[in-house]
Amino acid sequence: MPSRERSQPIRQLLAGVKGFRARYYERRPDSMKQLVAEGQHPEILMIGCSDSRVDPALLTQSEPGELFMVRNVANLVPPYQPDGSYHGTSAAIEYAVRVLGVSEIIVMGHSQCGGIQGLIRLRSGEAVQDDFVSPWVSIAGSALDPYIDQATSHVKDSEGSDHWPNVVERAVVRTSVDNLMTFPFVRERVEQRTLNLHGWWFDLGSGELWGLDTTTKMFALME
Amino acid sequence: MPSRERSQPIRQLLAGVKGFRARYYERRPDSMKQLVAEGQHPEILMIGCSDSRVDPALLTQSEPGELFMVRNVANLVPPYQPDGSYHGTSAAIEYAVRVLGVSEIIVMGHSQCGGIQGLIRLRSGEAVQDDFVSPWVSIAGSALDPYIDQATSHVKDSEGSDHWPNVVERAVVRTSVDNLMTFPFVRERVEQRTLNLHGWWFDLGSGELWGLDTTTKMFALME
Amino acid sequence: MPSRERSQPIRQLLAGVKGFRARYYERRPDSMKQLVAEGQHPEILMIGCSDSRVDPALLTQSEPGELFMVRNVANLVPPYQPDGSYHGTSAAIEYAVRVLGVSEIIVMGHSQCGGIQGLIRLRSGEAVQDDFVSPWVSIAGSALDPYIDQATSHVKDSEGSDHWPNVVERAVVRTSVDNLMTFPFVRERVEQRTLNLHGWWFDLGSGELWGLDTTTKMFALME
Amino acid sequence: MPSRERSQPIRQLLAGVKGFRARYYERRPDSMKQLVAEGQHPEILMIGCSDSRVDPALLTQSEPGELFMVRNVANLVPPYQPDGSYHGTSAAIEYAVRVLGVSEIIVMGHSQCGGIQGLIRLRSGEAVQDDFVSPWVSIAGSALDPYIDQATSHVKDSEGSDHWPNVVERAVVRTSVDNLMTFPFVRERVEQRTLNLHGWWFDLGSGELWGLDTTTKMFALME
Repeated sequence: MPSRERSQPIRQLLAGVKGFRARYYERRPDSMKQLVAEGQHPEILMIGCSDSRVDPALLTQSEPGELFMVRNVANLVPPYQPDGSYHGTSAAIEYAVRVLGVSEIIVMGHSQCGGIQGLIRLRSGEAVQDDFVSPWVSIAGSALDPYIDQATSHVKDSEGSDHWPNVVERAVVRTSVDNLMTFPFVRERVEQRTLNLHGWWFDLGSGELWGLDTTTKMFALME
Repeated sequence: MPSRERSQPIRQLLAGVKGFRARYYERRPDSMKQLVAEGQHPEILMIGCSDSRVDPALLTQSEPGELFMVRNVANLVPPYQPDGSYHGTSAAIEYAVRVLGVSEIIVMGHSQCGGIQGLIRLRSGEAVQDDFVSPWVSIAGSALDPYIDQATSHVKDSEGSDHWPNVVERAVVRTSVDNLMTFPFVRERVEQRTLNLHGWWFDLGSGELWGLDTTTKMFALME
Repeated sequence: MPSRERSQPIRQLLAGVKGFRARYYERRPDSMKQLVAEGQHPEILMIGCSDSRVDPALLTQSEPGELFMVRNVANLVPPYQPDGSYHGTSAAIEYAVRVLGVSEIIVMGHSQCGGIQGLIRLRSGEAVQDDFVSPWVSIAGSALDPYIDQATSHVKDSEGSDHWPNVVERAVVRTSVDNLMTFPFVRERVEQRTLNLHGWWFDLGSGELWGLDTTTKMFALME
Repeated sequence: MPSRERSQPIRQLLAGVKGFRARYYERRPDSMKQLVAEGQHPEILMIGCSDSRVDPALLTQSEPGELFMVRNVANLVPPYQPDGSYHGTSAAIEYAVRVLGVSEIIVMGHSQCGGIQGLIRLRSGEAVQDDFVSPWVSIAGSALDPYIDQATSHVKDSEGSDHWPNVVERAVVRTSVDNLMTFPFVRERVEQRTLNLHGWWFDLGSGELWGLDTTTKMFALME
């Protein structure tokens, strides 16, 4: 596309790439040169949400090479289902664990998640017309079971409160971490203590990060 | 998990979150406050690779709120397949286009892509034992058809050359852009000129960005 | 100088400028455009040390336009001496206060300050051969008076301890703040409560920032 | 000062320091640890203006440890004058050259410099009432001699044009570089080719950087 036809957002992204190149290829070329010569060796697989406000690399002030990343709607991990279909998230988990040998997997949820709001509407019986979002977020449908009566009433009664969505967002992180354990190659490494699983939940309003205690299954504020 | 048991990479990520909070919640709180109060309004959906070296937010020097993001192995878009199964990438595309109303979709490929190397080995007949990576990258299998004899010989004959992988990486970006057009809600907006599709390929070795000319189907260096 | 003759450090600085231009003139041009059109309106005058490790803009994560800055050896403020000679630091203070109308002046000292080490050697009677450093740091000579016997013995006896230098570094910040009050146009505004003076001391080893309580004249850790 | 009394700009600076500490002491502690253990070894002395819009560390995307820095009004270097008075800029030059052994000195001027505007008013005969700024900028008074008739008419006639100030700003950079050569310890090293002098001028409006050709004494756009 000729330059004059580029939209403003695209032109600004290209300026960003120019700045990246100045910084990582000319100003301080060592780390990128090494990443090119030796390949990537990230220690962490991060499974985050597609939401533009919670970019995990920005949120953790990471540099190129540090985080192998999956981002999908609502940071979901489907259960292990090796049926030959297209499973993007599962493929990334397999690549990170079996090829790259990461030692940490972090599921990063967050408050005010649009995907979770879709899930709540779905479970409250609201009519939904979409092709992919509803089937996708239904991965976490069972996460709502313990709360479902409450859910229905909450969603109908207390519009504007964000307490209930936060409960669901955290439950979904828990489900994703549980689903990770259904992958044999994950479970094996967790049991051998060469792989750690983490569930995080970022509160967009306050900037606080909460972590799942994998023993008690409760979230606590991380220092 | 008590603090003393945290691994070094995890402690460093938490320090990064602390720095993010200092910067975006205390030092310059305006943009994040606005993103929380008004919700996200990104203009761009970026579909990038999970590779840790090509984080699209870093590569384009973006800020929170700018890029709605999918990241999967080899930046693949599956064809439109509304069968009720779990389609993470398709769900994100649907959310970005139908709910958020983005005006640009960028498929961002890159050189030295491990997923593409897997695809090449797969198509060259190499025995592969995995559950998800091979089925996933086979989305782009047809991208290799025009080159397939060449592929076999290349992969067997010219170890060390990276020319052939680059050809495939670019062909895969082309396939992903083509597959985007199989989504009715994408095609409709492209035809109405309210949505633009872009195929980019980042050369990790040189830092150069190449762009797909959607008319000629050829890649050219972007300024 | 033709490009091929530029040294490596210079080439890297130029790459940095290229990155700055990409970021502040193309990627996010709004703030720089405004600073050009409307001129500078910093609220803060920072008087810092020339030491390369304690750049105040980096240390406070500032953006262009925020800090009017003096940097000299040992962050010294000379006493008010309007004798027509060249007084660079006094000129900057005058410009910041009378022309720009800043509301805060911060004197930023730090640990492991080479200028202060020179002052200590000077006061301990060591023979010194320089043209400018010794006369310059002698501005703060009286800061050592309360400690001077102690100084001599300390410097001779306790090689390796960094306690004594820190005492002096803080005393020098105190002296600089006191000297600020000898400028009539500073004193006037402080008494009218339109200008605040601050003395800070940054501990390079720990990253902690200490602040001078202008009432008790003691330094305390800042949150 | 108790926390509740801190002004907004001060609270934001403190948040910046918190972010710096998170980044340089916890997230990526290696470089700062080394700078503390081994001391500073900058290769460059930068002599820049106090103007808040042209912070040299930001402008060159530098990291702690890279630039030994002087900042004063109008980036002036006084002539060598070892008379025992307080010469802050000369002391920093001496420390950088004789103690630290820098290999490059850069004088960094810029457009829209308030100090230079003061100098122009002064030389055009305008009555000026200040204690320090006029004497200080008069260091560069002789820089205007070749232009002085022109100056008077320009300043009186062509309000709004910024051409003439730019001519003066560049002449002042030239004077500062010339004055550097009056310092015996500078001249000696330049003649031995162990020290390089540079004159730069940054155009705030366009973001372009111009460099002084020390042979022709003319400024040219740097790539």
